[in-house]
Amino acid sequence: MAKHSERVEDVFNALPDEQRDFVYKILYGKSPSDLSLQLPPEALAIAKKHGFDMQGYQFTAATESTRPARIVRVGLVQTSIAAATTEPVQIQRDAIFEKAKCFFDAASKSGVNVVCFEECWHMPFAFCTRERLPWCEFAEEISNGPTVSLCSKMAKQYNMVVICPILERDTLRGDIIWNTAVVINTDGSVIGTQRKNHIPRVGDFNESTYYMEGNSGHPVFQTPYGRIGISVCYDRHHPLNWFMLQVNGAEIVFNPSCTVAGLSEPLWGVEARNAAIANSYFTCSINRVGTETFPNAFTSGDGKSAHKDFGPFYGSSYVTAPDGIRTPGLSRERDGLLVVQMDLNLNRQVSDKWGFKMTQRLDHYAAEFAKLAKREYLPHTVHPPNNAKGQNVQENGSN
Amino acid sequence: MAKHSERVEDVFNALPDEQRDFVYKILYGKSPSDLSLQLPPEALAIAKKHGFDMQGYQFTAATESTRPARIVRVGLVQTSIAAATTEPVQIQRDAIFEKAKCFFDAASKSGVNVVCFEECWHMPFAFCTRERLPWCEFAEEISNGPTVSLCSKMAKQYNMVVICPILERDTLRGDIIWNTAVVINTDGSVIGTQRKNHIPRVGDFNESTYYMEGNSGHPVFQTPYGRIGISVCYDRHHPLNWFMLQVNGAEIVFNPSCTVAGLSEPLWGVEARNAAIANSYFTCSINRVGTETFPNAFTSGDGKSAHKDFGPFYGSSYVTAPDGIRTPGLSRERDGLLVVQMDLNLNRQVSDKWGFKMTQRLDHYAAEFAKLAKREYLPHTVHPPNNAKGQNVQENGSN
Repeated sequence: MAKHSERVEDVFNALPDEQRDFVYKILYGKSPSDLSLQLPPEALAIAKKHGFDMQGYQFTAATESTRPARIVRVGLVQTSIAAATTEPVQIQRDAIFEKAKCFFDAASKSGVNVVCFEECWHMPFAFCTRERLPWCEFAEEISNGPTVSLCSKMAKQYNMVVICPILERDTLRGDIIWNTAVVINTDGSVIGTQRKNHIPRVGDFNESTYYMEGNSGHPVFQTPYGRIGISVCYDRHHPLNWFMLQVNGAEIVFNPSCTVAGLSEPLWGVEARNAAIANSYFTCSINRVGTETFPNAFTSGDGKSAHKDFGPFYGSSYVTAPDGIRTPGLSRERDGLLVVQMDLNLNRQVSDKWGFKMTQRLDHYAAEFAKLAKREYLPHTVHPPNNAKGQNVQENGSN
Repeated sequence: MAKHSERVEDVFNALPDEQRDFVYKILYGKSPSDLSLQLPPEALAIAKKHGFDMQGYQFTAATESTRPARIVRVGLVQTSIAAATTEPVQIQRDAIFEKAKCFFDAASKSGVNVVCFEECWHMPFAFCTRERLPWCEFAEEISNGPTVSLCSKMAKQYNMVVICPILERDTLRGDIIWNTAVVINTDGSVIGTQRKNHIPRVGDFNESTYYMEGNSGHPVFQTPYGRIGISVCYDRHHPLNWFMLQVNGAEIVFNPSCTVAGLSEPLWGVEARNAAIANSYFTCSINRVGTETFPNAFTSGDGKSAHKDFGPFYGSSYVTAPDGIRTPGLSRERDGLLVVQMDLNLNRQVSDKWGFKMTQRLDHYAAEFAKLAKREYLPHTVHPPNNAKGQNVQENGSN
């Protein structure tokens, strides 16, 4: 192509106006120009200085006479690692912390109320290696770990809620490692944590080697800026995980992720967006960027030879409103900050319109779950009353 | 725009090769050219003669040494009504039956094994009117109704499984009306029925005026061409409905729908596709086309004045494989037949790769459902330990 098109949106934006608007309307629900949010020059200057992508959008709601608008600005931060994986842990961590401070600064100057980083943003996504040292050194305690401490300080300084996904080590309870998102209030205190509920073992995502399925359930955190739920990375593939956050009252669900181009990119625009639609809440999808190179070669369970790199993580962080309208994605290659203003009143308005919660028949499904979770559950299969022709694709022994 | 672009795919196809392939890879998972299935000239001739869109694609699977390929061809039929809504019911029905025969013929000549029509394809989607007569006259019994009888005859003649969504009247049990898909075997016998589980009351979809939530559960039908589940129209908004069909062993789920441009079009490419991904099965999304005009004006609950037309239904029928790769959509405006060949072995291959079923923690959710379906369920909300600043968007009395 003549010009490098980094994102599909770059291709769309180069189309003639009418075609561009048509494509956006069908695919994204609205043209980005109808969602535009002007960002302050001093924030954009930080992005320019540090070479990260920065975009702003807004979702509005109808005016209600008995309920004031509930305006929240979220900031989605996608980063690459900031030092080589061969550096000592302390050096790597300090480098990414320095980068993070720039994002806090830009977010603050943009009036962001809630900021969220990608999954395990304080470390390389080293689970592809299956090695324990030095990677497990990045695991830290909630109460006094360096990453949570930094975010706590930033939260207080900027009066923000911060969602800080880390590799957690629960030193009090057996030194066990978890994949955890920490929710920090505007005064720097920890409101609570969400441990990743569903753990992948696919491709280079050997995470089940390091930590188990989370035991924190599906809490929703009451913050000054709405009720927040968190679905960590692979949790987004599980509609039941998103559903529980709905039942527990989430208004915004963040999905801090790390996922790579060859594996999941065509699914990226589908899953969190479907969750927003099905559950009448906002979803915020955040992915890492860049390719990470490790000291020792590893295999990927795909028949190919051992190699040292993992990625590319394709960024493309985006936000979906409860009516399914979504923002464009951030860069697929560069660090980025996506600032999105939303009126939380939209959730109830969309829920009242579509009625998905009213019509979801919880009693029916509860009765089904009581049966289906049992090992001896027999699927409800209806067999033909007699043998018909053309039985060429039945599996031997199936049903 | 210079040339009328009916579908987003028309816009994509006009892009330079490299950009087009890039967009398809990110958005659809693969370029349509990598999915192409050649259709026989005699089938295409029928489409040309009757002016309907016809497209063919195929999804392949890796070869396994212990399990033969399980190749199935499905045919998705999207139609507009064939006679004015002011004609007598018999005339309207005969007209759409004549049209259907052309589709059966083209599908048969294309080697289709399983054909599915859109929701209530034998009648106008008259539920917008809230009138009972003449529309309820279209409701028919499973055992001897004219639409099921026609499809039964065609199924036997062409050795096809036919999924025939109708307005059902259960004369044996109180003359009650249901929205029902009938699964007909290759010998013309009825294997079973799926009644629509979730009923909309949104916009012009006043369906709860006519029929209640289905009482047939989530059966999966064993056919000569795989295990088939059906999610009727609005059921597609409910991840739990799709989930139950997975639990019950579906390999292909058809979603016969009727839905209109202003309401749901940006969601259309998201929901069934997400279901295919989350549940490791194929999904087949079918929508009506055209605008239907009724004798008496009706309002739409949107503050606008009474009017007589309903639509446009935007077609765009498509198929998604369990790995999330999707076909382009059929026409947004014209009748169409989408022929898709699939190897059902792909389901298990994708399921083994991603592990969504293995990691879905049914026991955990079963325990949650036992609690959450109760009226007195208290959402799991975590409150901050102390009052923080910035509490500007909390609702009064929330939580």
